[in-house]
Amino acid sequence: MSDKKKILRLFHYGLFILTSRGNGQTEPAPYAASTVTWVSQASFEPPLIMIALRKESWANEAVRQSGIFTLNLVGKNKKEMAGKFFKEIRIVGKTINGFEFTLTEKGLPVFKDAPAYIECKTVDRSEKGDHSVIIAEVTDAKLFRDNDDLLLLRDTGWSYGG
Amino acid sequence: MSDKKKILRLFHYGLFILTSRGNGQTEPAPYAASTVTWVSQASFEPPLIMIALRKESWANEAVRQSGIFTLNLVGKNKKEMAGKFFKEIRIVGKTINGFEFTLTEKGLPVFKDAPAYIECKTVDRSEKGDHSVIIAEVTDAKLFRDNDDLLLLRDTGWSYGG
Repeated sequence: MSDKKKILRLFHYGLFILTSRGNGQTEPAPYAASTVTWVSQASFEPPLIMIALRKESWANEAVRQSGIFTLNLVGKNKKEMAGKFFKEIRIVGKTINGFEFTLTEKGLPVFKDAPAYIECKTVDRSEKGDHSVIIAEVTDAKLFRDNDDLLLLRDTGWSYGG
Repeated sequence: MSDKKKILRLFHYGLFILTSRGNGQTEPAPYAASTVTWVSQASFEPPLIMIALRKESWANEAVRQSGIFTLNLVGKNKKEMAGKFFKEIRIVGKTINGFEFTLTEKGLPVFKDAPAYIECKTVDRSEKGDHSVIIAEVTDAKLFRDNDDLLLLRDTGWSYGG
């Protein structure tokens, strides 16, 4: 493995389940939900985050269409949940991949099992690599469980980077 | 504290010391060196990272001028070193704030105490907030100590976010 790859895999990341929706279409799904880890704050005022999403993913296309998304924080003991959102999703009633959700006022799914979520609105994009970089303003935030620590990518045994 | 602030402070980050240089001027210093934490990979191919730098900082201005920078990774036991690069820097001989450095081929300082560094070239910028978001290609990478774990912001007791 190259030094570059080894070093990039040392970076620390949290885990999030991003949700979004398209512009009303039902294919490939009315909602997108995908585990993401390349996430960081990018400004205090206004409160911005930056996130990188695989270009060809439905999550990225949905965010492109609607301009809005949520990040559901993944608690330390919820590795299994994060593992369920790597691939295609299956929506049955008010569940995605078996996990119950409710809708925000803007119509985005948020998971009952998430200790917190933020809702975001795209303000800028960069398309220089194989992921889209999305800069987004945090427009809403709900914390349900104060003392949940968040899952760290390193602690999962998974890697995404290099 | 608002939910937004609390949630953004739960995000996980590593710690890095960024170095850069201006276009040959000696004021405020020939080099910039600053502890940063809002860093993430942003693409595999080409290998890109994204980083947010305070707009009014000398580090940001130096990166704007030269278009290049390094990220020196901070080892788990090097909190004290990271703490020395929050404010103005003092260059004496081949030391910055007391830490020995060498220069890369492109003339950027890298620290002998860092277990690894990457060298990067800016490919895009976004200026929507109080930090500049810089998208940069990883053009070089050197790993000196394979088994050093990296310092996690949460483990320092410091916070940067909210």
